[in-house]
Amino acid sequence: MSPPQIPSEQWAQVVEKTGSLVYKRIPVQKPGPDEVLINVKYSGVCHTDLHAMMGDWPLATKLPLVGGHEGAGVVVAKGELVSDDLNIGDYAGIKWLNGSCLACSFCRQSDEPLCGKALLSGYTVDGSFQEYAIAKAAHVARIPKGTNLEEIAPVLCAGITVYKGLKESGVRPGQWVAIVGAGGGLGSMALQYAKAMGLRTVAIDGGDDKAAHCKSLGASAYVDFLTSKDIVADVKAATPEGEGPHAVLLLAVSEKPFQQATEYVRARGAVVCIGLPANAFLKAPVFDTVIRMIQIKGSYVGNRQDTAEALDFYARGLIKVPFKTVGLSELSNVYGLMKEGKIVGRYVVDCSR
Amino acid sequence: MSPPQIPSEQWAQVVEKTGSLVYKRIPVQKPGPDEVLINVKYSGVCHTDLHAMMGDWPLATKLPLVGGHEGAGVVVAKGELVSDDLNIGDYAGIKWLNGSCLACSFCRQSDEPLCGKALLSGYTVDGSFQEYAIAKAAHVARIPKGTNLEEIAPVLCAGITVYKGLKESGVRPGQWVAIVGAGGGLGSMALQYAKAMGLRTVAIDGGDDKAAHCKSLGASAYVDFLTSKDIVADVKAATPEGEGPHAVLLLAVSEKPFQQATEYVRARGAVVCIGLPANAFLKAPVFDTVIRMIQIKGSYVGNRQDTAEALDFYARGLIKVPFKTVGLSELSNVYGLMKEGKIVGRYVVDCSR
Amino acid sequence: MSPPQIPSEQWAQVVEKTGSLVYKRIPVQKPGPDEVLINVKYSGVCHTDLHAMMGDWPLATKLPLVGGHEGAGVVVAKGELVSDDLNIGDYAGIKWLNGSCLACSFCRQSDEPLCGKALLSGYTVDGSFQEYAIAKAAHVARIPKGTNLEEIAPVLCAGITVYKGLKESGVRPGQWVAIVGAGGGLGSMALQYAKAMGLRTVAIDGGDDKAAHCKSLGASAYVDFLTSKDIVADVKAATPEGEGPHAVLLLAVSEKPFQQATEYVRARGAVVCIGLPANAFLKAPVFDTVIRMIQIKGSYVGNRQDTAEALDFYARGLIKVPFKTVGLSELSNVYGLMKEGKIVGRYVVDCSR
Amino acid sequence: MSPPQIPSEQWAQVVEKTGSLVYKRIPVQKPGPDEVLINVKYSGVCHTDLHAMMGDWPLATKLPLVGGHEGAGVVVAKGELVSDDLNIGDYAGIKWLNGSCLACSFCRQSDEPLCGKALLSGYTVDGSFQEYAIAKAAHVARIPKGTNLEEIAPVLCAGITVYKGLKESGVRPGQWVAIVGAGGGLGSMALQYAKAMGLRTVAIDGGDDKAAHCKSLGASAYVDFLTSKDIVADVKAATPEGEGPHAVLLLAVSEKPFQQATEYVRARGAVVCIGLPANAFLKAPVFDTVIRMIQIKGSYVGNRQDTAEALDFYARGLIKVPFKTVGLSELSNVYGLMKEGKIVGRYVVDCSR
Repeated sequence: MSPPQIPSEQWAQVVEKTGSLVYKRIPVQKPGPDEVLINVKYSGVCHTDLHAMMGDWPLATKLPLVGGHEGAGVVVAKGELVSDDLNIGDYAGIKWLNGSCLACSFCRQSDEPLCGKALLSGYTVDGSFQEYAIAKAAHVARIPKGTNLEEIAPVLCAGITVYKGLKESGVRPGQWVAIVGAGGGLGSMALQYAKAMGLRTVAIDGGDDKAAHCKSLGASAYVDFLTSKDIVADVKAATPEGEGPHAVLLLAVSEKPFQQATEYVRARGAVVCIGLPANAFLKAPVFDTVIRMIQIKGSYVGNRQDTAEALDFYARGLIKVPFKTVGLSELSNVYGLMKEGKIVGRYVVDCSR
Repeated sequence: MSPPQIPSEQWAQVVEKTGSLVYKRIPVQKPGPDEVLINVKYSGVCHTDLHAMMGDWPLATKLPLVGGHEGAGVVVAKGELVSDDLNIGDYAGIKWLNGSCLACSFCRQSDEPLCGKALLSGYTVDGSFQEYAIAKAAHVARIPKGTNLEEIAPVLCAGITVYKGLKESGVRPGQWVAIVGAGGGLGSMALQYAKAMGLRTVAIDGGDDKAAHCKSLGASAYVDFLTSKDIVADVKAATPEGEGPHAVLLLAVSEKPFQQATEYVRARGAVVCIGLPANAFLKAPVFDTVIRMIQIKGSYVGNRQDTAEALDFYARGLIKVPFKTVGLSELSNVYGLMKEGKIVGRYVVDCSR
Repeated sequence: MSPPQIPSEQWAQVVEKTGSLVYKRIPVQKPGPDEVLINVKYSGVCHTDLHAMMGDWPLATKLPLVGGHEGAGVVVAKGELVSDDLNIGDYAGIKWLNGSCLACSFCRQSDEPLCGKALLSGYTVDGSFQEYAIAKAAHVARIPKGTNLEEIAPVLCAGITVYKGLKESGVRPGQWVAIVGAGGGLGSMALQYAKAMGLRTVAIDGGDDKAAHCKSLGASAYVDFLTSKDIVADVKAATPEGEGPHAVLLLAVSEKPFQQATEYVRARGAVVCIGLPANAFLKAPVFDTVIRMIQIKGSYVGNRQDTAEALDFYARGLIKVPFKTVGLSELSNVYGLMKEGKIVGRYVVDCSR
Repeated sequence: MSPPQIPSEQWAQVVEKTGSLVYKRIPVQKPGPDEVLINVKYSGVCHTDLHAMMGDWPLATKLPLVGGHEGAGVVVAKGELVSDDLNIGDYAGIKWLNGSCLACSFCRQSDEPLCGKALLSGYTVDGSFQEYAIAKAAHVARIPKGTNLEEIAPVLCAGITVYKGLKESGVRPGQWVAIVGAGGGLGSMALQYAKAMGLRTVAIDGGDDKAAHCKSLGASAYVDFLTSKDIVADVKAATPEGEGPHAVLLLAVSEKPFQQATEYVRARGAVVCIGLPANAFLKAPVFDTVIRMIQIKGSYVGNRQDTAEALDFYARGLIKVPFKTVGLSELSNVYGLMKEGKIVGRYVVDCSR
């Protein structure tokens, strides 16, 4: 096999100044000794990407910045230290976590996302909204040959994140988990992962369309927050003996569920926070939390093992992702729809156009 | 050995009407088939007992009520179903958890304190402020012969509770735990249990006396909230690499630490709530909780296995409890001091006078 | 509802002398304060029952003995201490573990099967081969109304046991478990439980019929020990990267697999022993066990929580049990077939005839 | 600070042909991008080093080979990818695990010792029996400034290994662990780590000198296998209620204890194999293993986090190591004594002479 032809220039969406995008030609980088260069075929578009462009999060981005952290593509070059488990021609994915030190106490304990030196794709290093992106070899997701790169792109962030949350919940097969925001992009994947893991779910969302959608994805019960007169009572009633679910996954983008979930979770249960509503706070009465031994915990993105496992569920055909594809050149339009709250499901950009 | 003489009447402190105590003669009860009758020698006095008398907690007490849930004494009678691991003449302790159903999903999983049918000593059933008290045999604490019953009384609630909290924190030998309220009654025991478990501690309390006291009990570091200009920074600075302690035990009776501890706990760490400040709320920013994967959890009283373990540490001489003893007849005075906030250490009542 | 009529005499299969059965009338017992009397409708027949009759196990049985430990029926009387979570008219199951002390260090930690005072149905106390059997209320399996009592009988021992083994293996959804003896009675249930728990399975057994049977129950792969030239290599080849399954469940009744499974289990994996071939020994090279950090462990019958969970999977329709029913009066014939090794699937006796 | 002078040649002990050593001048290597060069000050000498020289283990060594895997020294050069948590002048340790891929499923889950591409110091790559040794930066042990490098050398293998074993045992503070071979080099460290972790120990070894030695290191009980008439009974008698220890650490170099420990370990307990007697086998009756739910597991060397933790206990002054130092040039003599079984405690070589 002849080596792939790597151009010296490429198309990219570049944030030159906070708040705006420029679609332009930029140089293709060369991988360092522990890095690979990936020809990005498709990239998912996530709300985080919009935040990165707008610069409205507490943490500063690099500038100029190429965003994107759900990139699926093909390895076209690798550094001298990259071992033979990752070769030119292999499929690979760029995740939010582009790299980490692999030596601190967090990395040593498989908590790479907590590494103080973590590199974040499309935020502190250039990401997947370009044709050729750099990533640390130890961190890129290994994607089996034959995978549909267009469909897997959104799994690289959203899928892994909800799978991680389900693992962190400590729930065992046969037990119940409530999913708040079950009808949305993250929620739809969470329902499918939960089912594949032998869990039962109480889907919480609003409206009949969402109800039908959630049921079609395997939800065991549905609670409609738009019509319920008592959400706490309804969620509890949906579970065995009315004790409430063993865990709650908070994927919502509003604050209220973060202050309500401890009321319906089962005693000894876990409330897992994943969604990040702006400026939101957790709040719960101390007395009830203690007496019922409730646990509230945050779950961030998955580590590398979570990634491998989450992708494996996808590869087995157990996770379906609704998405719509446009060219990379149209990214601004996607952000526009996102700002207007008009996006249902997930957008994917084709980096070749 | 001739069987013990059991009188038909006894002295007891009785709450006949919420808010007041009467020291009077009442009948001695007979144990049911699965119960024992304990000749209470000493009983610790806890803030909860005051709440029970005042009726100022959301949960109603029985009335008339004999309070008390830290009773150490001798078994003098037992029901027909009580097996030979608990015999007349054995030392035994009455705990907050007087009994539970032993069959529900919580009891089946060793979480008896969460049983919906739990009987609470000195609250929903009569407790240890009398000479002869009834308790479910499966639940009474087994106390080794030769134990000092006067000193062990306070361990039966305070000791077990902090030991349980340390177990729930998930901290391993060699790791760090911050103890908020380390100089108080619960805190003093927590410091000793932590040391015996191979943990290192950051004691948090106010004043130089408390500092000296905490250091004498083995605290690795002390942060004075009265003089610290930045508690968060100081707690973190006291731990390796400034990352913060692996866990925090909240024994405080004010609300603020419950809203501050997530700031200094180590990423992936656990904030364990034990203290019950009136009407207090937990509060924490969602963003930070998620990104740092913080865990906040409530820890209630220990189960029966925790009890056995906590008493075993005491029996080995590793836990010293400062206390002062008065006659049961003087219980009102103790409550008076308690209301005025004048109690340092723990009061014990001698039930024979 | 009028109380059920309880006769004073009933039919039972009684072992009066080791080695033989008598089908005769015996008195109906009355439940003690913590017991229930169950009108047994159906009982599964297990190899253990044959051992009990033959008296060929190291542990002595009571004599005379009524065998049986998979009894499904209806509560017809209860003692004064039995709470209202178990009422007359409720469905209930008699398991191998008829009762335990509920107070020792094992019971306190939910390991009732390890209790030194455990009562064993059909072995140390009379069991389910009679119309009316006694059991400790805290231990009888709660069976939902509407359940098919005939079909659930074998789940009460075989189902719970394999479910427990899968839990003890520590395997998580998505991971692989090899099941040795997958085509037999225990194995067939194990395959179904594994699937319901989100696990993938390598079924190991002999012959094409077994292959088809295992595949129909959801096995991901099948290794035929009758035709395989290298079982170790074949099992490993069936799993990702050829690393071997994360766990192995040993349900076999011959010794060889107990000495071979460590060779194909994945490094860090668990070999779980459940089957009890007579006089068999585990054996493994120390060097390989250490270097690959292999774990070998025994899994006995489930505790009460395992029971509730295992029955819940059944109640959801996820576990199908092939069985054949005869009258209790024909039990000797069943033992006869068992001795000849002619039984496929599970026999159930109808205790009313 | 001027950079350290690194010579181009150095003294080393080289195995040129299996079975013999040559003390000679060899070139100093240059570190790769992800490596450091360590000026080895002291190195412990382990039985494994003798096996490496003799080539009598199943796994082949490199040839020519510089042995040694307990090297303590100073970083004198580093590759371009080594981050600023490891700098020139820092103290660092070379362990058995010189490097691993950091990307496979084992490395991703903090089980680097199980990595299929692991590099082994003094076995598959050159080790610490030279003045200047190469190691992967992500794997070298971080040693605090001011540490006694001579004393810490043996901790780098023996200390970490026994600490890992204690962690793998799952034993909690207050529980009991039996240590077989407690009076030897590994055993002496195990007793001290166990004490520092809040555990209680039954030391098992032979003779009165060992008894005194074990007691001085904090053993709670001692069983002398030379004089005991019933080791199983004696070990059980030394523990609460005669139930046996919660875990057993097998550090012995003979096979018998590996086949006996399951008899005295507590039901639900763990037998942890660490020692590697030549050609030895584990063996245990299936029946007893299942009925008592015994666990037997292998524990290999620690991972990087175990290393950091084990060294931290040492740094706190809780672990004392008896050792004797000779010049690197005298290594042959040490091997001679080792072959004759004449070594008590640990030998350390001073690499500067």
